[in-house]
Amino acid sequence: MTNSSPMQDIGRCSPRFDALDKTLGREQFASDFYTEDMLWAGVCRAGIAHGRIRSVNTARAEVVKGVHCVLTRKDVPGSNRQGFVYWDMPVLCGTKVRHAGDALALVVAENRQVLARALSLIEVDITPLPVIDSMDVALENHASQVHDLETGNVLKSATITKGNPAEAMAQCDVILEETFFSPVQEHAYIETENGVARFDKDGILHLTVSTQAPFRDRFEIARALGLDHNKIHVINPYLGGAFGGKDGATVQCLLALAAIHVKGRTIKMWWDRRESMLAGYKRHAARMHYKLGAQKDGTLVALECELDYDTGAYAHLGVEIMALGLEHAGGPYRIANMESRGRCIYTNNPIAGAFRGFGVAQVCFAFEGMMDRLAIKLAMDPLVLRMKNALIRGDRNCAGVTMTHSTGMEECLMRLSEHGLWKTRKKWIADALPFKRRSVGISAVFNGMGYGRGLADYAIAKVKLSPSGLIRVYNGVSDMGQGNASTFVQIAGEILCQRQDTMELVQPDTDRTHPSGSATAGRTTYTYGKALIKACEALRDKLFNRAALMLLVDDGAGFAMIPGGVRHLPSGRDLSLADLAAMMMPDDRICMAEYLMPTTPEMPKGGETFKLGFPHLIYPFAAHLARVEVDELTGEIIVHDYLAFTDGGRVLNPQVFEQQVQGAVAQGLGYALFEEVKTREALLETKDFSTYILPTSMDLPDIESHAVETIEHSGPFGMKGIGEVGMNAPLPAVASAMAHAGLPMNHAPFTPERVLGVLDQEKKDIPCN
Amino acid sequence: MTNSSPMQDIGRCSPRFDALDKTLGREQFASDFYTEDMLWAGVCRAGIAHGRIRSVNTARAEVVKGVHCVLTRKDVPGSNRQGFVYWDMPVLCGTKVRHAGDALALVVAENRQVLARALSLIEVDITPLPVIDSMDVALENHASQVHDLETGNVLKSATITKGNPAEAMAQCDVILEETFFSPVQEHAYIETENGVARFDKDGILHLTVSTQAPFRDRFEIARALGLDHNKIHVINPYLGGAFGGKDGATVQCLLALAAIHVKGRTIKMWWDRRESMLAGYKRHAARMHYKLGAQKDGTLVALECELDYDTGAYAHLGVEIMALGLEHAGGPYRIANMESRGRCIYTNNPIAGAFRGFGVAQVCFAFEGMMDRLAIKLAMDPLVLRMKNALIRGDRNCAGVTMTHSTGMEECLMRLSEHGLWKTRKKWIADALPFKRRSVGISAVFNGMGYGRGLADYAIAKVKLSPSGLIRVYNGVSDMGQGNASTFVQIAGEILCQRQDTMELVQPDTDRTHPSGSATAGRTTYTYGKALIKACEALRDKLFNRAALMLLVDDGAGFAMIPGGVRHLPSGRDLSLADLAAMMMPDDRICMAEYLMPTTPEMPKGGETFKLGFPHLIYPFAAHLARVEVDELTGEIIVHDYLAFTDGGRVLNPQVFEQQVQGAVAQGLGYALFEEVKTREALLETKDFSTYILPTSMDLPDIESHAVETIEHSGPFGMKGIGEVGMNAPLPAVASAMAHAGLPMNHAPFTPERVLGVLDQEKKDIPCN
Repeated sequence: MTNSSPMQDIGRCSPRFDALDKTLGREQFASDFYTEDMLWAGVCRAGIAHGRIRSVNTARAEVVKGVHCVLTRKDVPGSNRQGFVYWDMPVLCGTKVRHAGDALALVVAENRQVLARALSLIEVDITPLPVIDSMDVALENHASQVHDLETGNVLKSATITKGNPAEAMAQCDVILEETFFSPVQEHAYIETENGVARFDKDGILHLTVSTQAPFRDRFEIARALGLDHNKIHVINPYLGGAFGGKDGATVQCLLALAAIHVKGRTIKMWWDRRESMLAGYKRHAARMHYKLGAQKDGTLVALECELDYDTGAYAHLGVEIMALGLEHAGGPYRIANMESRGRCIYTNNPIAGAFRGFGVAQVCFAFEGMMDRLAIKLAMDPLVLRMKNALIRGDRNCAGVTMTHSTGMEECLMRLSEHGLWKTRKKWIADALPFKRRSVGISAVFNGMGYGRGLADYAIAKVKLSPSGLIRVYNGVSDMGQGNASTFVQIAGEILCQRQDTMELVQPDTDRTHPSGSATAGRTTYTYGKALIKACEALRDKLFNRAALMLLVDDGAGFAMIPGGVRHLPSGRDLSLADLAAMMMPDDRICMAEYLMPTTPEMPKGGETFKLGFPHLIYPFAAHLARVEVDELTGEIIVHDYLAFTDGGRVLNPQVFEQQVQGAVAQGLGYALFEEVKTREALLETKDFSTYILPTSMDLPDIESHAVETIEHSGPFGMKGIGEVGMNAPLPAVASAMAHAGLPMNHAPFTPERVLGVLDQEKKDIPCN
Repeated sequence: MTNSSPMQDIGRCSPRFDALDKTLGREQFASDFYTEDMLWAGVCRAGIAHGRIRSVNTARAEVVKGVHCVLTRKDVPGSNRQGFVYWDMPVLCGTKVRHAGDALALVVAENRQVLARALSLIEVDITPLPVIDSMDVALENHASQVHDLETGNVLKSATITKGNPAEAMAQCDVILEETFFSPVQEHAYIETENGVARFDKDGILHLTVSTQAPFRDRFEIARALGLDHNKIHVINPYLGGAFGGKDGATVQCLLALAAIHVKGRTIKMWWDRRESMLAGYKRHAARMHYKLGAQKDGTLVALECELDYDTGAYAHLGVEIMALGLEHAGGPYRIANMESRGRCIYTNNPIAGAFRGFGVAQVCFAFEGMMDRLAIKLAMDPLVLRMKNALIRGDRNCAGVTMTHSTGMEECLMRLSEHGLWKTRKKWIADALPFKRRSVGISAVFNGMGYGRGLADYAIAKVKLSPSGLIRVYNGVSDMGQGNASTFVQIAGEILCQRQDTMELVQPDTDRTHPSGSATAGRTTYTYGKALIKACEALRDKLFNRAALMLLVDDGAGFAMIPGGVRHLPSGRDLSLADLAAMMMPDDRICMAEYLMPTTPEMPKGGETFKLGFPHLIYPFAAHLARVEVDELTGEIIVHDYLAFTDGGRVLNPQVFEQQVQGAVAQGLGYALFEEVKTREALLETKDFSTYILPTSMDLPDIESHAVETIEHSGPFGMKGIGEVGMNAPLPAVASAMAHAGLPMNHAPFTPERVLGVLDQEKKDIPCN
């Protein structure tokens, strides 16, 4: 009776609601939408990194048979500006090119062959400008400017202070200073940027897009193209990956522009891998200079750091990403005195934007690197050093925010310390074969959850009883593959005591579901989950009261939910949900509820300069361990074993939790070992996956994941989001192993070339940096 | 700063609050209380099992030097009746002896030597009556009566029905019928029954007792001795074990009787092991006849069973224990039709009473035995059979109660099915050496939590801010060693964000703490914990408001608790708890809250005959596995590996959770393999631990425990109590292994003699029962 559709009890490994349909290929992603009358749209891109546009000649393209239109800047009716905070990115460039992926013209054609031919016939005349291919060049006096800013190429600089770091530094027993470099990383989702659009005869623009923010997309399109956002309808199916790269304008405005010029036809745009890598958003490269002071016993005392983030040609969320870097610059530790200075810098490099770990993955590499240096300097166990300084509830974090919510850093480290992979490390290291150098590294990380201050992190949940007695959940927040939608079905099933096979899920759709923010910042299950619990409880109470009316009982107090119905316990009488639905008007069968994530009222000194996203109140934590073997002859690093302890509060579905951790660790190990977007004079050298190296399953160790279940009182059933935190730990864990192997590395990723370089340094007996 | 006293975050393995003091011997148990002027009290016991008392001659004892008094029935001022439901047990017997441990006289003496001499000089003249040494004899026509009841020796009979078992049985594909016998078990706590008492010149009777119910003890003493319960003061230190054996009158009335006759002196009574075994309460022996009907596919259809519980000479909680047997008779499964008939029967055997597993341990043996027979009969995997029928939320249990709360039976079984000890069973079995027969058994069990209907399961928590700023928890419910008191400190620390070393704990004391029921029924942490959370939240809110007054802030909204104080987050100002305490009146520094456990409004057919304790609403669940090896030459059973999955909702402290499970499994394996109170003509043959065999650490396997964390919405942080459920599973798990080894055993414990008997039967190729 029940084995095929178990109860959705919270805390158990229940199969994901979407698993079967996805496995059988029945689930339709945006890229699966095709129609009979469909046209294809494509973009002509600049190809050079910086220049003045003299002309874009589309004449030869326009006359190709099967071309419906060729559009340039002059065809854009609105502001032509995209970018949800800084609006600095044109839909189609008319005067200036700022990076090689800039869009200059848009073609709509009958099919892909015609489209390719027409694009090849567009003639572009651009006067080159000096190329800003690095942050150093961008910061030079009289450097050419990417944008017309009073502050040159510095989009934003800020300084956060706490205590008196200069004075405190002078009192320290030990002071260490290092500079770290982290690379540009590609999102590399399976489903590249795509969507379909159609402008209907009723004046409504319909889009089905692979996006993380369908509700915000309407405003983005409306502003850029001068449309009424109420006449834009966005459907948002499951995504084949996103990681932050679909949190902003990709195909949306281009598709909408094409649709309003070719009305009544469905138009599809789907970037191939090379276009995705050329024009898509990437992780910010960072340069991080750190100065850390401590006492002899390992107590951290003072930190000074300077963080530079290369945001490429456009801002995207670069300022907010830098803000999170400043907020997390001191790691999950108690440090009484800190000054962190940050700059977000424009260059002509590919656009950097939101990416899982959102500015924090960078500083975790740097600060954990300082911790390992300090441990070596003081001859302390690196785990003991971290335990000694780990944040506990009631502490202020390095940015000055009091940890008033669940704080499992110490517990994660403690659990790690008890694990066999840590306890037996010495023997494992000693067992290395000749020319193989083994080491075990650890890292301790955190990551603010939710939007932070300045922008309400909210969700509006809706749940409905269908006429046939099924429960339908209206999900307003995208599922990128992480499983939040499935968890929403689980939550509703829990509250309403219904089995998975009697429930339905509506994915985000601006006409059917309600604004619930973007699928970002580890917030989806937390915020929407809280709203959903309230909505389901309201529906349950309503059903009890209706049942009381039907059964002529005094009130709803004696009722309980059972699968398919409600039961009046004193009398043992049951009512089916279908019978209840039959006596309720359609409006009456709907319950909605909203929730706003709490924010900290504390504002660290200097933080008021950030409009949004700073600081945070609730943090997940993680401690990771990597067992690493270096081949001294080839420089290759093999990660043999991997271990992750994660404090995400209570776990709602252990399987989904583990998948999140494993996915993040895989992406994090790629970041540590292989992945690096390379440019020469701001032009992409790693244009596809033949040169941009992703880890395959053969490159990854077994990843062992354990939950450290604190209870986050504010969260749904005590959970908090772990979508990002797992990304931050693998690079510093591998770096930690390298440092303790005598091979400290400050420049990621740790390619064989760089490892051989450090090995070479070692042979020369010169300290490396 | 913090490593030595970690934050008490819920869900983490924090060291028990009582661990250090107990380890160092600093914690004072009741048996540790001694005073300079202390006298010893002792009891003259009947020594024969059934008879009329002609005389108790105390003359020779009274004249012994150092004897203060020798008391008999005539010296008891009140009703002389004990027993909190049936009041059928005299403090001192005056007319009739009902079992060999009955108390006839009480001596108070200067020291233990004088006491022993005086007791030996008391002369007793008793006319023997026919001894009722078994339930069969008790049920014979014209049997001698233990008590003067209209129903003969049947204290209570009851029948619970659901559906139509007779009709349903006729439709079954398979019908099995078996009779099971479970033994009398001894509590065998380390600290035997003891206490001290003193009747003060102010007319107050003070007792310090090893008891599970200090508040109820006052009423018990007052009724038996005709005293005012308001003038009785009971202090209840930590107990050195109890398991139900101290949930009722042991030394209390005897000590009080001594104290009111020898006023102004402290009097100590401490039963030695032999007295404890003679006069203490034990687990009920049960005879259980089962008839189970099922479909070919394994679906359970109908159950008929008859349960007889031997309550010995007095009722204690025998009727309520039988009620739980009826409630749990069909195991944690869906069975649409059931009739369970129960009888609680008086005999002259030692008194049976409350014992961890409370009537349920017996029926779990029987019903799980039926499941294994059914699996063998149908050639089904016993785990699949259990999974198929396991209760899920929304089902009615066998007694007819709807499972509206967390129901993790299926998940426990699923987790067990995924474990290596289950998956590799075939190889392990095949690897047996000659004359060793290996088998793997499983069991699925549950156990109602709390008192059930008819008696409010309530707690009143109190928490106080001391003048020096420490948080003090006033615990009203005994800690028998299971760790609930420590968990209360953890809960208060969690809500108030204080560290263990800044908190204090007051153990139950009828003058200082508040009535919160007995330490029984897996209820302590659930019920008191819920009340404590409310009390701590009230204190926190009060502190915020007071702090707002002191800091001239509008309201308490911007405050958070930090260790040692509160912080106003918007301004960053801190106030210490000591500063706050200084501005508060003593009454103002106290917060109290109460909680009542919910009960089911459903009353199974036939259940209305029970005054209290039936039925239950919330159940923990467990699935256990035992890998068993039988020596075919000696009949010895070795349990090689043991595995327990327990659904106790959310786990508050994994270490305490695991200790509970491991303790229960150890006690359960004793019950399965060794432990059996033997009598001959109702006289004890197993008088001490040389003949009553307890498992030592050498007899026990490693016990692997895993939590299956459902969320119990009604519980503190989502938990439910597991004090009992673990006891119910080992006997059926071992029995399951035996059944699947071709050695079905219906009579526990499985001593080598019984195993050899079954092996012998097997050789004769005769089906055994």
